[in-house]
Amino acid sequence: MPRKRNIDELREKALKSAREGIKNAYASEEYALMQAINAYRETTRSYNLAFERLSEWYGIYFPEIKISNPDMLADLAIALNTKGSVSKESIMAAVKDQERADSIYAKATATIGRSMNDEEKAALMSYAGMCKRMSEALVGIEEYLKVASKRILPNTTYLTDEKIAAELLARAGSMERLALMPASTVQLLGAEKALFKHIKFGSKPPKYGTLFKLPRITAARRDLRGRYARAYAAKIAIALKADQFTKNFIAERLMADLEESLKRIDGSPVREKPQRGQGFGGRFQRRPQGQHRMQGRKFGQQRHERA
Amino acid sequence: MPRKRNIDELREKALKSAREGIKNAYASEEYALMQAINAYRETTRSYNLAFERLSEWYGIYFPEIKISNPDMLADLAIALNTKGSVSKESIMAAVKDQERADSIYAKATATIGRSMNDEEKAALMSYAGMCKRMSEALVGIEEYLKVASKRILPNTTYLTDEKIAAELLARAGSMERLALMPASTVQLLGAEKALFKHIKFGSKPPKYGTLFKLPRITAARRDLRGRYARAYAAKIAIALKADQFTKNFIAERLMADLEESLKRIDGSPVREKPQRGQGFGGRFQRRPQGQHRMQGRKFGQQRHERA
Repeated sequence: MPRKRNIDELREKALKSAREGIKNAYASEEYALMQAINAYRETTRSYNLAFERLSEWYGIYFPEIKISNPDMLADLAIALNTKGSVSKESIMAAVKDQERADSIYAKATATIGRSMNDEEKAALMSYAGMCKRMSEALVGIEEYLKVASKRILPNTTYLTDEKIAAELLARAGSMERLALMPASTVQLLGAEKALFKHIKFGSKPPKYGTLFKLPRITAARRDLRGRYARAYAAKIAIALKADQFTKNFIAERLMADLEESLKRIDGSPVREKPQRGQGFGGRFQRRPQGQHRMQGRKFGQQRHERA
Repeated sequence: MPRKRNIDELREKALKSAREGIKNAYASEEYALMQAINAYRETTRSYNLAFERLSEWYGIYFPEIKISNPDMLADLAIALNTKGSVSKESIMAAVKDQERADSIYAKATATIGRSMNDEEKAALMSYAGMCKRMSEALVGIEEYLKVASKRILPNTTYLTDEKIAAELLARAGSMERLALMPASTVQLLGAEKALFKHIKFGSKPPKYGTLFKLPRITAARRDLRGRYARAYAAKIAIALKADQFTKNFIAERLMADLEESLKRIDGSPVREKPQRGQGFGGRFQRRPQGQHRMQGRKFGQQRHERA
């Protein structure tokens, strides 16, 4: 059956090409970078939660202690509870400060906290160990983020930092989508919720999303932050195009331009806060309470509809 | 100055007695149990999140794999990536099933996934290790929960299970408060949000909170679940009083009574779903859309007020 063989062969070829296609689509490192930044953000949140719980839990046994460094608290809890008796050396190894170690030792030997039984100790130590392990994982992922952001987004990373660059990528979904975005979209990546609230309910429009994590924007004068964000977004949009298409390193020139723009913005006089609803004419005006732009709309209903 | 010495002495005594008071207040194990169950619930959530991220991330490198056991996935990811070359033995050690190990080996050697570079590998391995460590911590805490719940809440634990008993305690805030609660409050512990929604907006009243985690209630006939929860809550409220005050073990008798009540409930005919707003007379009636029980109320305003 030569006909049959032919079809089998064709099928084989088509399958192979499909496999190749999938392979190529996922071969790019950007997907790994997106996973890493998402893992980093989620783990940071979980870690903060776990640390809060650890300090509260450990506070039952040793209420005199106040340590705001999560790693140190975990180390100390382990040092104070794994060996038979409390020793100055193990405390010293955890807090790395002689004076502090002495004061903790004095407090630990005369604490009014509850004394642990063995099962409690095992559970708490396991939990403290987990907290430590989470912070190690964060360090490990951060190292990768640094390398990968510089490799995939060298210009953008230069203008912002590795975490912000990676977060922009993760929010856009792919390098190509991100690179093709206009500056105004880049400026608002991460502010989707506020943006749609603005469009739907006429609340104030957001000025920045992920970009607010830039220290320069956070520290800027309140009435200038939006303009800072716009200036940044304009340059980042250009840097992204260079990262994706030309692969040239133009970030130093962009940064110089940006500094100039920021200086110009800094020179502007302090604006008075505009009166409500006098900012931008009708379209973006704040509606008086009790009115709704979407009143009488056809699609769906409000959750708290009340005629 | 005998007067001064006297005051100093008194002060010393007062301080000592205050210290004793605090010490006694926190000496009870119930606080440790509450911390442990809270840590357990938070960590479970974080762990589920971390596992989802791990399977998505690892999916870039090995998209053919589908493993729904978190621990096994972490083990496998580590086994496939820590040593130089993939070996059948290390896969076998992770999945513990010869047939499955063979199929994974075949897939792993011919995967269409991306190949990792060293930095990616380090970050991902660190993350997988963290996932494993979290599941270990969960096991450790669970062991403590089992012991402590039986010690502090023997009767309640017998009627429910150690996690539900501990969760009831954590929601109430202390053994004393929990033991003094009426059955109706115990029934709704953990359903505070739904309860206040009911009181405020007239939505349907909740039937159970934490108690819904009881397998017997989850599996019960839909129209009987509320009555099951009520029967359980009645017995649990008695068990709690025994746990806190008399310290007798009466749970077996309570359980027998409970079984009888449940059997009686099971025998009741299938109720037709009541018409809206005809269930319980005016007070708990569902208001027609557009009306509001709190309309015209004096204290504060609704978030979505619209005149």
